[in-house]
Amino acid sequence: MSLLNRFNKLFKAVNSFKNPAIRCLVNTLGALDQCNDTSNNTVNKYTNRTHTCKELRLNNVGEKVVLWGWLEFQRMNKFVVLRDGYGQVQLLVDDKDNKLRNLLPTIPYESILKVEGTVSPRPKEMINKNQSTGEIEILVENLQVINKAKEILPFNIREFQKAKESLRMQYRYLDLRFPQMQRNLRYRSHLTMKMREFLVNNHFVDVETPTLFKATPGGAQEYVVPTRFPGQFYSLVQSPQQFKQMLMAGAIDKYFQIARCYRDEGARPDRQPEFTQLDIEMSFTNVEGVMKLIEDLLEYCLKDEFNLKSASFNRLTFHEAIRLYGSDKPDVSFDFQIEDCTKVLGKNSKLANCSDFAAHFLLIPEKYVISNKKAKELIQSVTEKNNNAKIVTGAIKSREEFVSKFEKLLGVNVANEFVEKNDISPNSLLFLAFGSKKHALSMLGKLRIEYANILENMGVNIRRNGLHFLWVTDFPLFELSDNGNLQSPHHPFTAPHPDDVHLLDKEPLKIRALSYDLVLNGNEVGGGSIRIHDPLLQKRILDLLNINSKYMSHMIEFLASGCPPHGGIALGLDRLLSILLGTTSIRDVIAFPKNHEGRDPLSGAPSNIPEKDKKLYHIETIDEENVIK
Amino acid sequence: MSLLNRFNKLFKAVNSFKNPAIRCLVNTLGALDQCNDTSNNTVNKYTNRTHTCKELRLNNVGEKVVLWGWLEFQRMNKFVVLRDGYGQVQLLVDDKDNKLRNLLPTIPYESILKVEGTVSPRPKEMINKNQSTGEIEILVENLQVINKAKEILPFNIREFQKAKESLRMQYRYLDLRFPQMQRNLRYRSHLTMKMREFLVNNHFVDVETPTLFKATPGGAQEYVVPTRFPGQFYSLVQSPQQFKQMLMAGAIDKYFQIARCYRDEGARPDRQPEFTQLDIEMSFTNVEGVMKLIEDLLEYCLKDEFNLKSASFNRLTFHEAIRLYGSDKPDVSFDFQIEDCTKVLGKNSKLANCSDFAAHFLLIPEKYVISNKKAKELIQSVTEKNNNAKIVTGAIKSREEFVSKFEKLLGVNVANEFVEKNDISPNSLLFLAFGSKKHALSMLGKLRIEYANILENMGVNIRRNGLHFLWVTDFPLFELSDNGNLQSPHHPFTAPHPDDVHLLDKEPLKIRALSYDLVLNGNEVGGGSIRIHDPLLQKRILDLLNINSKYMSHMIEFLASGCPPHGGIALGLDRLLSILLGTTSIRDVIAFPKNHEGRDPLSGAPSNIPEKDKKLYHIETIDEENVIK
Repeated sequence: MSLLNRFNKLFKAVNSFKNPAIRCLVNTLGALDQCNDTSNNTVNKYTNRTHTCKELRLNNVGEKVVLWGWLEFQRMNKFVVLRDGYGQVQLLVDDKDNKLRNLLPTIPYESILKVEGTVSPRPKEMINKNQSTGEIEILVENLQVINKAKEILPFNIREFQKAKESLRMQYRYLDLRFPQMQRNLRYRSHLTMKMREFLVNNHFVDVETPTLFKATPGGAQEYVVPTRFPGQFYSLVQSPQQFKQMLMAGAIDKYFQIARCYRDEGARPDRQPEFTQLDIEMSFTNVEGVMKLIEDLLEYCLKDEFNLKSASFNRLTFHEAIRLYGSDKPDVSFDFQIEDCTKVLGKNSKLANCSDFAAHFLLIPEKYVISNKKAKELIQSVTEKNNNAKIVTGAIKSREEFVSKFEKLLGVNVANEFVEKNDISPNSLLFLAFGSKKHALSMLGKLRIEYANILENMGVNIRRNGLHFLWVTDFPLFELSDNGNLQSPHHPFTAPHPDDVHLLDKEPLKIRALSYDLVLNGNEVGGGSIRIHDPLLQKRILDLLNINSKYMSHMIEFLASGCPPHGGIALGLDRLLSILLGTTSIRDVIAFPKNHEGRDPLSGAPSNIPEKDKKLYHIETIDEENVIK
Repeated sequence: MSLLNRFNKLFKAVNSFKNPAIRCLVNTLGALDQCNDTSNNTVNKYTNRTHTCKELRLNNVGEKVVLWGWLEFQRMNKFVVLRDGYGQVQLLVDDKDNKLRNLLPTIPYESILKVEGTVSPRPKEMINKNQSTGEIEILVENLQVINKAKEILPFNIREFQKAKESLRMQYRYLDLRFPQMQRNLRYRSHLTMKMREFLVNNHFVDVETPTLFKATPGGAQEYVVPTRFPGQFYSLVQSPQQFKQMLMAGAIDKYFQIARCYRDEGARPDRQPEFTQLDIEMSFTNVEGVMKLIEDLLEYCLKDEFNLKSASFNRLTFHEAIRLYGSDKPDVSFDFQIEDCTKVLGKNSKLANCSDFAAHFLLIPEKYVISNKKAKELIQSVTEKNNNAKIVTGAIKSREEFVSKFEKLLGVNVANEFVEKNDISPNSLLFLAFGSKKHALSMLGKLRIEYANILENMGVNIRRNGLHFLWVTDFPLFELSDNGNLQSPHHPFTAPHPDDVHLLDKEPLKIRALSYDLVLNGNEVGGGSIRIHDPLLQKRILDLLNINSKYMSHMIEFLASGCPPHGGIALGLDRLLSILLGTTSIRDVIAFPKNHEGRDPLSGAPSNIPEKDKKLYHIETIDEENVIK
C-alpha cells in the first residue's frame, strides 16, 4: 500500500468514527426513541389514520384501526409488513379472502396502502420481541392500494448497508425511509428544539438575520449573487457575525439563531456549500459567562440521551493543548500525552540547529506497543514535505538499551540524561520528534491520533466511552500568513486579552485572544470569543491586519454608537450531530446534502440558466479556456 | 387632490393599518409583555449584571445591585435614566459626590455605563406610575463609563416618531433600541417559538432543506448563484416546496420548517428579496386536516395576546368570495356585501352586450352615506383602463327616486324590477357595476375596501375589532396567462378536486383545486393545497401547463417511488407579524431589512466584487448599455 493510500485510509478511519467510543455512543442511542415518543397521542391528529405502524400493543386488541403506510414485504400472500416513519406492523390476510390474497403478490413493494382491520394478539410462536408491535397483528378487513410504486426501485429499503452513498443521495426520498435516516432527522429536530427551549428559557431572543449581504474582506470564499444593478452583487453570508454584533448595539442583549451559513470551499470531502450553526451572542458578559452558558446548554440537551454533565467539560489553553497533544483540537478520550525534552536535546548542538528548536516525545507503554514495522510506516504517514522537524522511533526493552540505541543520534551524554530525567518504563515504544517546535509537535499530534486508530482497528480500545468535551482557550490573536502578513486565526473582531494589549505594536504575535474553541472527541464543534467593543481598538486591529477600514465603516460606526461589551459563540450543528449520532459523514445528518463536488444529486444543480436571466443580471458566462487565459 | 394622489393615499391607509380595528390590536399588545416576562430570574444568568433596568421594585429596596445599560438622559447632573432592552431605571447621584456630578454632563447620551448602587424607594412626589421601576431609584455608589458614544448620533432614541425610515434603517443598531422595535423583535421570537412548541407537541419534525437548488421552470424570478462549474448556477429557492414533498415520500410524515425563501421581485414596496415562511407538510391527510391544524396552531399561538379561538375562522369558496366581496382575500371585518342583479339587468339588451355579462351592486345604508362628490371620486379611483365594466353611483332618497334616476340607464321596466326585487332602503347610496363579470366584481371589491377606509379617515369605525381569519377555498386549478396559455395560480403540484378531474381535457378552467388561502383582515397570510401524488396525473398537468417534464423528472420519479397522499401550507411570517403588531411596513418586524430598492442600508450591498471572484465563477459583468442593445 502506498503511503498516500495508507494516509488516506487512516484519515478515513478518523472521520468515519469507527472507533469504539463512538460506536458506544451509537448504542446508547436506543434512548433516542425519546425524541420519537408518540405517547401523547397527538401523532395521528390531523391525519386520516387511527394509529402509526409503531404504536399498537396487546392492550389495543379488539380495536378497529385504520393504518396507512408502505408495503415493505409480504410472504405467503398472507403476512404483510406495513411500515411508516415510526415502525412496522404485521397485517394478516384472511385465508378465505381470495381476492386480496390474489391481489397481494401483484402490488409492488413500497406502494402506499390504506388498511382497515382489527387488532389481534399474535399466536405465541409468532411473537417477535424485537419489534415494538411484535405481540399483535392486524386482521385485515379492507386494503386499498393508494399509490403504486414502480416495480423496481434503485435499492432495497431493507438493506441500508448495501446501498451505495451516491445512489442513496440520488434517491434521497427512498434513503430517508431507512430507520437510520429517520432516526438522524428526527433526532436533529429534537436536539435543535431542546437548544431553543434552553435558550428561550434563559431569555435569548431568536433573531433572523439576512443571508444576502456585502462581501467580507478576508476570510473564506463567499458565494456571490448578481442583482439587477449592473456589476453589483450580494454575497451569501459565511456567518451572522456582523449582524449579531449590531444586535448587541441594538439592545437585543441575548441573541440566538439557528443560522444557515454559506462558504464556497470548492470540492472538499465532508464540507457542504451551506451549513447550519447555532449562533449565540450576549452583552455584558465575559469568557466565563459564554463558556458556562454552553456547558449548561449542552447538559440540558444531552443529559438524557448521553448522560452529559456540565461539570465534565475540561479546559486547556491553546499552548497547553499543543504541548500535551500536538493539536489545537485534541482528542482527550485517551491519554498518550506528549512530553517535552527540549532542554536535554538542546544540549546537542548538532540537533538544535534552528531558532525555534524543540524536542518532544510520545512514549507508548508496553500494553499498547505495535510492531517496529508498523511504527515506521506510521512515521512516514505523518511526515510532511517541507517539514523542519524529524521524528524517530525505537522499541525500548530497557533503559540501557535506549542509550545504546540512541547514542549515535543524541550523543551519549544527552541519551543518558534523557533516560535519567524521563520515566522510561521497560518494553515501551518511543517516538521522538525534534526540530522546529511547530512541526515537531504537529507531527507527534497526528501520530498520536493515528496510533489510537491503528490500535482500534486491531481491536484494542484505548478511547474512553462517551462524550469528551474540551475547551481550548487563549488562542493567539494573530498568526502569520504565507506571505508574512498578520492575519486573524478567528476573525478581526476578536478582542485581545486585556493583559496583552500593550504588545500590539511590538509583539503582536504574542497577544492572546479572548477566544475559546469547543472540541468534542477530537473534533472542533464550536468556537467564539469576546469581541472588541472599543471603536479605536477595532480600527487599530483592522489596520494591523491591512483590512481597509473603509469596507468596515459600518462596523466601526456601530461600536461608536454606544455598544456594550459582548461576546458569543457558534456551534457547528452538522458536525455535532454527526458525532452524536455516530454517522460516517455529515451528509447523513442533513436531509438533502450536496455531494462532494457540491452538486445536488437529486436535481443535478448547479445547471445552466436561461439567457434572459443572464441579461437581467448583467452577466455573461465565460468558458474555462478563457478563464485560464 | 389629484385622483392619483387620492388613490395613493387610500392605498397607504390600507397598508398602514391606521384603521381602528388594527389600532385596537396594537392596544391589546400591552399583553405582549408576556413575551418579555423576566420573572423566572434567568434573564441575568451568564451576565455581569444583577438585574435588568426593568425589574427592580419596592421589594428590592436595600439590595446592592450591579446594572449595565445605556445612558438615556440626565438632568441636574444628578438624576440619570439608565436604559436597556427591557426598560428604564432612575439613578440618583449623591449631592456630595462632586466628582461624579461633574463627570455626568460630559458623558454623551447612549454611552454604556456600569453602575453599582443600592435600591431605594423614591420620595412619594417622585413616583412614576407609568414606569415599571417608577417606585424606586438607585443610589449610585460607583459609576463607570464602559464605552463612550459619539457626541452626536443620527437621531434621538427618545423620538421614534420623528426619525425618518431611511435613517432608521441606515443606523438600524440605533433604531433597534426604540421600545417599539424591541417589542417587534422580541414578539417575533416569542411567536415563532410558540409555533414550534405546538408543532413539536404534535409530532412535526423540523427539517432544514437546502436553499441552493435548481431553477424551477415557471413561477417567480429566482436569484442565481454562479459556481466554479463554468456556466452553471444554483438558484436560491423560492420555497421548500419540492423538498417538503420529497420528505413525504421519505416517510417524514409531519414536517415543518421556519424557512428562508428568496424571490427577486425587483424594486417593489413592502417586499423583501429574502423572507420567511412557516412551511408545513403532512402525509395521509386532506383539506380539512390541514385547515384544522392551522386553526389549532394559531389559537395556541394567539389566544393569550389576541384572544383568538380556532372556532372563529370563517370559510368561503373562491367563487363566494368574489361574488360577495369582489376579492379573493376579502376583509370580512365589516359587512357591505355585494349583491347580484345580473338577471334583472340582463333583460336590458343594450347593457348586456358581452358574453360574460354580469351586474352587481353595493348598497350603503343611510348611516354610512358619503357625499355625492366623494362617491364619484371614489368611482374614478377604482376604474382601471381596459376595463370591460362600468360603475355608476346614486344617492337614493326613496325607491321612487331610484326609478326616475336610473330609468334612463336601465330602462323603466328594469329599473322598476330592480327596486322590487331588492330591498332598497331609503336614503342609501348605490354603487352599481355591470359589464364583464370579472371586472365588475373586481371594481366593486376595491371600492368596498376604499369606502371603508374613507369612513375610517372620517372617524367612522365600521371594521369590527380583532383578528378576522378567513379561509378561501376551491381556487381554480388553472387560469389563462396573458398569452392565452394555461398557468397555475398556485403551483403545478396542486391537486385537482377529485370531482372535477374528468374536466381535464375539455374544460380545464372549470376545475377546482384542493387549495386554500388563509386571509387575515383582508390580507393573504398563507396558502396551500393538497398535492398531486399520482405520477401520471402530475405528468398530465405538467404537459397541460407546457412545462417540460424533463426539468421535473425528479418530481415525477419520487411520486412513482411510493409516495403518500399529502398536503400542506405556508404562512408568510413577515406579513402575519406586521398585521399582529400593527406596523406600517413588514420592514418593522425584520431585524435588518433591505430598503425598497433591495439594498442593504447598513453596508450598501449589493456592491462590486473583485475580478478574482468573477474569474473563479466564470462570469463577466456587462454594463447597462450593453444590456439594452
